[in-house]
Amino acid sequence: MNFEFETLSLKFNDSELYIIDQQLLPRKEEWVKITSPADIIDAIQKLKVRGAPLIGVAAALCLGQFYKSQPDQRGWDVWAEKVRSSRPTAVNLMWAVDRMKRVVLSGADKLQVWSEAKAIFQEDVELCQKIAKHGAKRIQSGDQILTHCNTGGLATAGVGTALGVIAEAYRQEKNIHVYVDETRPLLQGGRLTAYELEKLEIPYTLICDNMAGMLMAQSRIDRVIVGSDRIARNGDFANKIGTYSLSVLSAHHDVDFYVAAPLTTVDLECAKGEAIPIEERKSEEVKGYAEWQWAPEKARVYNPAFDVTPARFVSGWILDSGFYSQEDIKSGRFEREIKTYFRGQVEKGV
Amino acid sequence: MNFEFETLSLKFNDSELYIIDQQLLPRKEEWVKITSPADIIDAIQKLKVRGAPLIGVAAALCLGQFYKSQPDQRGWDVWAEKVRSSRPTAVNLMWAVDRMKRVVLSGADKLQVWSEAKAIFQEDVELCQKIAKHGAKRIQSGDQILTHCNTGGLATAGVGTALGVIAEAYRQEKNIHVYVDETRPLLQGGRLTAYELEKLEIPYTLICDNMAGMLMAQSRIDRVIVGSDRIARNGDFANKIGTYSLSVLSAHHDVDFYVAAPLTTVDLECAKGEAIPIEERKSEEVKGYAEWQWAPEKARVYNPAFDVTPARFVSGWILDSGFYSQEDIKSGRFEREIKTYFRGQVEKGV
Repeated sequence: MNFEFETLSLKFNDSELYIIDQQLLPRKEEWVKITSPADIIDAIQKLKVRGAPLIGVAAALCLGQFYKSQPDQRGWDVWAEKVRSSRPTAVNLMWAVDRMKRVVLSGADKLQVWSEAKAIFQEDVELCQKIAKHGAKRIQSGDQILTHCNTGGLATAGVGTALGVIAEAYRQEKNIHVYVDETRPLLQGGRLTAYELEKLEIPYTLICDNMAGMLMAQSRIDRVIVGSDRIARNGDFANKIGTYSLSVLSAHHDVDFYVAAPLTTVDLECAKGEAIPIEERKSEEVKGYAEWQWAPEKARVYNPAFDVTPARFVSGWILDSGFYSQEDIKSGRFEREIKTYFRGQVEKGV
Repeated sequence: MNFEFETLSLKFNDSELYIIDQQLLPRKEEWVKITSPADIIDAIQKLKVRGAPLIGVAAALCLGQFYKSQPDQRGWDVWAEKVRSSRPTAVNLMWAVDRMKRVVLSGADKLQVWSEAKAIFQEDVELCQKIAKHGAKRIQSGDQILTHCNTGGLATAGVGTALGVIAEAYRQEKNIHVYVDETRPLLQGGRLTAYELEKLEIPYTLICDNMAGMLMAQSRIDRVIVGSDRIARNGDFANKIGTYSLSVLSAHHDVDFYVAAPLTTVDLECAKGEAIPIEERKSEEVKGYAEWQWAPEKARVYNPAFDVTPARFVSGWILDSGFYSQEDIKSGRFEREIKTYFRGQVEKGV
């Protein structure tokens, strides 16, 4: 099979789309063919495809190919709505589907619709590059960097967000060491980030989530860098469960704490973190991992997939449009620049 | 088989000793026969028997029966030393072996030696009761209590330390709810504490370690109560990895943070936390759980079994001798009372 585009997580050409099944990584590399919106909803809900930016890109590609094969506005729109609501927290998914909808509902032909999907893919590759360049400036040679969850080539169409920053710093020959939180319950750190760092040959050490505090107390962490699933316009942000604890620990130990994400992660409708809906997932994820279940069968479980970190604990926001400090949040520069960007998008008709 | 003594974790009479294999709980209840010091060393190192107080009791019972069957001081002493050093952090193990050694080396006969072992067992049962009573006073009806690791009947010969306090408060009909940290990597919370709380019919919710901060931010935790493997004379203490992070999070969210342990956990030789040796364990524990391995095979891992919590983050120390506040640490009452206790032990010839 010939694919025009191949990344760590996606392979596609004008008629076919495959995603790597991230639930099976790193021990098994299995590609899943996506032939319908129902397929992508299933893949999103089972976390075969995950990572806020990648979910948006994969949804757009799937919906683009679906319109190309069945260019029926009404029928397409019903499926687009279903895809849009397949996960509640990441705003990129909604943003990508809405962008596709605008094009479809404007009466564009099937090739224009498919081009829009490819543009969403291509832009994600490029904005990852920009995030990586802006963020790498914040990393010094000798840094020991802690990261949480997975934010690399398996979470985006490009080099990633937080992990893209780390990879770019390493590419620039900065001497760094990465500590990887395993990130319970779904182990995106222990499975996916570790897998990516091995491929990139970046030195790393895997830890359990509850070890980060001890490392900070020993002055073994210089910086924490994480991704985000949604950023409120005051700078509060939602990210993988455990991020909030890391932000408190970082503040206590005077460790720099950065969030790296595409502009499209910012939800201008959302005034502050409390307004972000938090997805709760099924109890089996906490009672074990996959088919391996170790807790009592009837155990009652709390399993929020995300938590919210208040802006006050963030040392800097690394977006494709640049770096924003606490000062930029307070002065309104952050909100202003995001608004300008979104206005530009609307004017461009996207 | 008739056993004079049966607990959640131990069964024994004058000639036989069984321990429950805690690595297989809660899904399988398998009893392992301990017939020699080599057996108990293996069980301790493989965590079939675990929990600082229980390790001391099990070691004493095993060494007592060993002396009873082969009353040879020289040979016994060689094995006692091996048992003593089978795990480095918990001071109760060293204390229990040293106490057995004093009796053996004083020339006591084999029945006296075995009586000493049974006394160590019986005293542990009683001191758990005392800890539970002192601690339950700190718990109010309506409290939501977070605990970490396992500190109940599977960690002691009696009702436990931190979990014993919780069980006693529940027995006193205080309306409480327990949040249980699963406690990676060995899942003593998700497996063992959940198992014990089900047996006790105490309402609980299992969470991943990285969720505690979010619960505190939502004001859903009123108190944290944990055990300890070694307490320095300034009140710093070592406990299961992750305890330190909880102490920082508790301080930040103004949540009461208690440590419950027997007096014998206090190491008067140890001036402060930094002097406590921290055991590092093998990487497979972090790369997966038991035979289930999910991280890349060659992943480099950091796996400290314990961390140290500084006294300043502790709201109170709950020992069998009573409750000690920050004030009691600063005034020297804590150190004085512990010294008095240990002097009493030496005078009693134990």
